[in-house]
Amino acid sequence: MALLVQKFGGTSVGSLERIQGVADKVKGFREQGHDIVVVVSAMSGETNRLMDLAQNIQKQPTPREMDVLLSTGEQVTIALLSMALNERGCPARSYTGGQVSILTDSSHNKARIKKIDEENMRADLDAGRVVVVAGFQGKDEQGNITTLGRGGSDTTAVALAAALKADECQIYTDVDGVYTTDPRVVEGARRLAKITFEEMLEMASLGSKVLQIRAVEFAGKYDVKLRVLHSFQEGPGTLITIDEDVAMESPVVSGIAFNRDEAKVTIKGVPDIPGVASRILGPVSAANIEVDMIVQNVADDRTTDFTFTVHRNDYQRTLEVCKQICDELGAREYDGDEKIAKVSIVGVGMRSHAGVATKMFQALASEGINIQIISTSEIKVSVIIAEKYLELAVRALHSVFELDREPVQEVEV
Amino acid sequence: MALLVQKFGGTSVGSLERIQGVADKVKGFREQGHDIVVVVSAMSGETNRLMDLAQNIQKQPTPREMDVLLSTGEQVTIALLSMALNERGCPARSYTGGQVSILTDSSHNKARIKKIDEENMRADLDAGRVVVVAGFQGKDEQGNITTLGRGGSDTTAVALAAALKADECQIYTDVDGVYTTDPRVVEGARRLAKITFEEMLEMASLGSKVLQIRAVEFAGKYDVKLRVLHSFQEGPGTLITIDEDVAMESPVVSGIAFNRDEAKVTIKGVPDIPGVASRILGPVSAANIEVDMIVQNVADDRTTDFTFTVHRNDYQRTLEVCKQICDELGAREYDGDEKIAKVSIVGVGMRSHAGVATKMFQALASEGINIQIISTSEIKVSVIIAEKYLELAVRALHSVFELDREPVQEVEV
Repeated sequence: MALLVQKFGGTSVGSLERIQGVADKVKGFREQGHDIVVVVSAMSGETNRLMDLAQNIQKQPTPREMDVLLSTGEQVTIALLSMALNERGCPARSYTGGQVSILTDSSHNKARIKKIDEENMRADLDAGRVVVVAGFQGKDEQGNITTLGRGGSDTTAVALAAALKADECQIYTDVDGVYTTDPRVVEGARRLAKITFEEMLEMASLGSKVLQIRAVEFAGKYDVKLRVLHSFQEGPGTLITIDEDVAMESPVVSGIAFNRDEAKVTIKGVPDIPGVASRILGPVSAANIEVDMIVQNVADDRTTDFTFTVHRNDYQRTLEVCKQICDELGAREYDGDEKIAKVSIVGVGMRSHAGVATKMFQALASEGINIQIISTSEIKVSVIIAEKYLELAVRALHSVFELDREPVQEVEV
Repeated sequence: MALLVQKFGGTSVGSLERIQGVADKVKGFREQGHDIVVVVSAMSGETNRLMDLAQNIQKQPTPREMDVLLSTGEQVTIALLSMALNERGCPARSYTGGQVSILTDSSHNKARIKKIDEENMRADLDAGRVVVVAGFQGKDEQGNITTLGRGGSDTTAVALAAALKADECQIYTDVDGVYTTDPRVVEGARRLAKITFEEMLEMASLGSKVLQIRAVEFAGKYDVKLRVLHSFQEGPGTLITIDEDVAMESPVVSGIAFNRDEAKVTIKGVPDIPGVASRILGPVSAANIEVDMIVQNVADDRTTDFTFTVHRNDYQRTLEVCKQICDELGAREYDGDEKIAKVSIVGVGMRSHAGVATKMFQALASEGINIQIISTSEIKVSVIIAEKYLELAVRALHSVFELDREPVQEVEV
């Protein structure tokens, strides 16, 4: 007998059959006596269809009107799912973001939630109804429709769970949980029963696209128990929690994340004077290019080498910017490489265990893999290597940190 | 320099090209200095698509959720049209029915407008913006989304025009105005420059589907100048007005309306006792069959014949009901005919001109057309004839009432 917020994404409600499947699933939870708030996305493909319509009308669609347009996607889903539940004798009522109301700021296309009024939802839950809420959307103080940006449905679910003080926020996806690494790369990759918010944040930001980063941050901030599960398979999924016990008992490394989307650029022989970093990165930001890792090597003979990574799609544009920078700063030369990959080990256990980075470097060295760049944070070590070694590196690290073995202290929840 | 409310229906916004066409048209009016509120329907086909989705989920879709679903149709159109206007340097802002707000009662799928808040629209008009409003929808006092039922976009336009005290409410359609009769039947059919609300009501209820009856009633009640025009052709259209001068100067007959959708049923030898009409029509209504004309002939030998017409689709069901009625009332027999048509002459001039009906009957007789049923109202005479004579009758009447001639006193507006 719990209050559960359950979020089903676009693929899970991608057809009438799937909507019926979600209705069956939600009805099952009701019959177990749980109170349910369901958050849904637009049916898969619908958001892209609407965006195409807009693009054909206006080169840069007015953000306010884009939100009016896109918010219809989830509105269709909430109506259909409520009908499906009613058809099953499971009373349900739908709410758009504005109707809840989910109050946001006025930043169209990327609004942030300011306040959630839980009164309407509470009244329906008390009356025995399932509450079906459109994810990804809200309204601002003037009543304008806003959207939270892509993937915002996860954030909606977490925010509703926080407002309602729900027992759990369950994110249903097309995977059955968070894995130690990508099972397509490492056969022995294992589903984690639990993971901490911080680890999840590092995993997510490194390309494990199970959950939206903002939703994880939100859940951590408001102490919402978050669980990732498979939409149409049974199983406990992965619990993401702030629980200190989990952190204490965690293995040193929880997972291996990786990312093939990067390219690196190096400017060599830069005069080693104060302010040089901003004079390099300023023009890059001005060109709307996002920088990931930044490494400045020690100065040698009054010059230094400056390396950073960008998204691979921005590689050619970045080289052009570098050419200008070289001229302006009087740097010796610049070059780059887009055949690189980033591999990271993530784990809260690193805080209390020394030598984790060394173990990582040794494992890579013993496979003959050269490390080009190293970057560390409190619970993560990332390295840039040649892309061709990616799979080899991930398998070696998965093995050396014994991620294929079930940790003895772990208890299934 | 007028305030115009312009309504574009589903066909007029049925594709991206047409939405662009509407934007061009609206921009033209803005450039002439007019303030514009545009009301739009869902893109043609969209409402049916959404209804099909619902039918596949729930046999009898929950009315509240049906409104949540269907209202997305217009919401897509307002966003796209606003974008198209903004792209043309013509600032625009969209409003759903709820955002205006258009307050309705809570009768989902067939809500009635109670109150319109014109504050938001007025502020945008004052700021030089085109206001784009979703037709057909509103919200009730609890904030639930409601729809006015099919064709409700005309009603939205008229209601907004009344609330804003607009100079004119323009309904853009796929015809260039209201005609003396269907041009497909009578070559000489002529567009009317003006018509009164009462005439328009009779024409509309008799099958001239240019305007929704409720919208015309509403316009008459609130004295809104209504004009029917072609979406993509230039021309003055037809003005529908309460203007007494128009009525005074009108020709005796303004138009010939007709309808092929009826069937007639006669119950013969019904005991002529009080209450017999209700004992016949009660079971018919109970079977959800709508009755149009009702004629009871004079009693003969303590029995009477009772005839009524129904929609042709209901003919077989009506015959079944009649069988029961005959048995219960001890009537002699019943029969029916579905090969009939209704032809009507309409004109406010009839009030002050005698002999109009006689002229009609003579015209039909001289063509050898037998009249089966006659029904009259203050500004209309309707007859039921065999369907095969329909075109002949309409042409004869159009000619005898000189509808192909431009009236001398008529002034183009």
